[in-house]
Amino acid sequence: MNNQTSAIKRIEQASRLIEGSISLAQGTSSFSSHEIIKKEVISAIENNKIDRYSDVAGLFELRQIISQKLSDSGFSYSSENEIVVTSGAVQALSAIVLSLFKRGDQIITFTPTYPYYSRIIEMAGVSVLPIKLQAEKEWAVPIELLEKSITPKTKGIIICNPNNPTGSVIPKKDLLAIARLAEKHSLKIILDDAYHRLYYGKQPLFNLCDKKFFNGEVIRIVSLSKTFDLSGWRIAFLHGPQNLIRDILEVHDNLVNCAPVVSQYAAIAALKNEKTIFSENLFYYSKRRKLMASCLKQMKDYFEFDLPQGTYFFFPKIKNIENSRELCFQMLENSKVAVVPGEEFGPGGEGRIRICFGKSEEEIIEGMSRIKTFFSEKKELAIKPGFKTLKSSPYYG
Amino acid sequence: MNNQTSAIKRIEQASRLIEGSISLAQGTSSFSSHEIIKKEVISAIENNKIDRYSDVAGLFELRQIISQKLSDSGFSYSSENEIVVTSGAVQALSAIVLSLFKRGDQIITFTPTYPYYSRIIEMAGVSVLPIKLQAEKEWAVPIELLEKSITPKTKGIIICNPNNPTGSVIPKKDLLAIARLAEKHSLKIILDDAYHRLYYGKQPLFNLCDKKFFNGEVIRIVSLSKTFDLSGWRIAFLHGPQNLIRDILEVHDNLVNCAPVVSQYAAIAALKNEKTIFSENLFYYSKRRKLMASCLKQMKDYFEFDLPQGTYFFFPKIKNIENSRELCFQMLENSKVAVVPGEEFGPGGEGRIRICFGKSEEEIIEGMSRIKTFFSEKKELAIKPGFKTLKSSPYYG
Repeated sequence: MNNQTSAIKRIEQASRLIEGSISLAQGTSSFSSHEIIKKEVISAIENNKIDRYSDVAGLFELRQIISQKLSDSGFSYSSENEIVVTSGAVQALSAIVLSLFKRGDQIITFTPTYPYYSRIIEMAGVSVLPIKLQAEKEWAVPIELLEKSITPKTKGIIICNPNNPTGSVIPKKDLLAIARLAEKHSLKIILDDAYHRLYYGKQPLFNLCDKKFFNGEVIRIVSLSKTFDLSGWRIAFLHGPQNLIRDILEVHDNLVNCAPVVSQYAAIAALKNEKTIFSENLFYYSKRRKLMASCLKQMKDYFEFDLPQGTYFFFPKIKNIENSRELCFQMLENSKVAVVPGEEFGPGGEGRIRICFGKSEEEIIEGMSRIKTFFSEKKELAIKPGFKTLKSSPYYG
Repeated sequence: MNNQTSAIKRIEQASRLIEGSISLAQGTSSFSSHEIIKKEVISAIENNKIDRYSDVAGLFELRQIISQKLSDSGFSYSSENEIVVTSGAVQALSAIVLSLFKRGDQIITFTPTYPYYSRIIEMAGVSVLPIKLQAEKEWAVPIELLEKSITPKTKGIIICNPNNPTGSVIPKKDLLAIARLAEKHSLKIILDDAYHRLYYGKQPLFNLCDKKFFNGEVIRIVSLSKTFDLSGWRIAFLHGPQNLIRDILEVHDNLVNCAPVVSQYAAIAALKNEKTIFSENLFYYSKRRKLMASCLKQMKDYFEFDLPQGTYFFFPKIKNIENSRELCFQMLENSKVAVVPGEEFGPGGEGRIRICFGKSEEEIIEGMSRIKTFFSEKKELAIKPGFKTLKSSPYYG
């Protein structure tokens, strides 16, 4: 197997080995975990609260806070049996797919999207049906095509909203159209709300967990990695109807016993202090989004792009280039800047790159300047004797 | 599904809800994570080292320490591509089983043993072939029966040595006999060395990773939960030949991205200070083992037992009782002491209970006294009007 880890991981790891490189690849920000979180975790460690397994579903105190937070958003889920704390969002998705779907089932993804969906679905022996978002229509879901594509084998749909890597948002009417199809065909809806807080729109984001509008089978994953800069802590949660949670919990137990207890304390601190911690970050992300947009505007000879409505990614189309993988590894080796090849995100991602603006303004300015230089010199590079590619690197795949 | 989590978890959780109860059930000790570990983790948190994903295989610094430690034990494994840091031992086993075995394969377990083996194997669509250890021969592996049981579908063997729950150790000659069979029939050997440090014998424990004696396909899981009292941190590692690690790494990435970075720093501190931290604990476990043995000797009307050579468990046979599950829940409800029913550990476990002596001397003395009282009053209890069972509890299964 050549692609043992995702290209995101491989290019990030390759960039760490190159001195002076700048990474705008992996979805992490320039921020460290907030002082409030660090302080509360240290206190939990000092008081020996973190040594032993928690309940499989997570610390009851944390589940109560989550239940309260959901209730504040208008969603009603019981801390007793409708919430599971997980070791990050991919662990949540693995537990969901391994428990609720069986070999031969099919799950729909809207592409380009997060590559772990297809990786995890296939790991479970389930097949993926990728449906291409419409790039020319602000990445809208093709509802008619979706309906036509559903077969008796189709059992689920994964929705990432805002979507990684496109930064696009599915409007309420389309979400409800998807939900109606899901209900009609008995499909389970999995919502990956990794970026629900990284949203720059004016209209509030609609969510299918809102039982006033939809009452079908929805399981929602909420990562704390992006909102609170906790990616290293591996902490997230999922919630859904009790009958599904029961089955998910069994597999969750088999996968990790419980989420790391120290990280559960980080989650308690983060959720209790959400307003303080998060509003600061969103202010900076908004600024950086404008900054990256202005950099990309200066490269209109090389790129076409949409302004993302959410996430911390731009996903520009590269003019006259199809193989973005080769290009990204060339860019890293020659210009020491890492971005993710669009192919990584599945059909519809070809000929694009994902650039993360979670990083500091300095990194964004320098990284974007290196990209510009790379493109302006590209034709020469390809024929220069010193030109290197990473094809021989273990990370190239 | 009724048994969404293991009976170990359910009885432990039930005991937490009963005020004044003592748990000798779950495999955790009375010790907190060591001050050295806490101090180093707090320093890593204060220095913002734990915020972002590590490499999928784990922090390189940690892998280097593991590689060095293995080398000190005479085992040669490269930090580059033969070691993966995992979010606990069950996550390691899940990644191994999901990556190296396919639907229709069969894996041998020696029972009674850790119930997660069969749970995880079945989750992956692989079948379990339980082979009963010989209780009357100090739980020896029946080598002839093993050989006869292997079919073309058999692809792996899991060995837990010392074994949970029996506390027994497989001698070198039997391990080598198993290894020769594995080599002859192309079976992968998975070693679960959760308890390799909790060993009270005089002869050093032989390990099939020792390439001087065996060169077949061995993947070894080393939990840090028991040795260093880190169960809540969810941290372990696995090592094996590069070609297998590559496949395991892909699934590991899908399951958790990487082990929690904060816990990886706990592992660094633990392994760097292994002698200081661990020798203290082993001294206490040896004392507690004698204490529990003396308690059990006073209950010879109710129990037969072997002295465990390793782990922190006794696994006595209850005289004249078959249904240990019913008994354990009765004992918890009526005498407020939790132990694990032997059935939980598979064929050969019936009519026994697992009692953990990781707990403090006070807890052991009080817990064993409650067990004694329960047995002496049992006949009366069963007919007393106030007698309760937990059959209606959500944890009874």
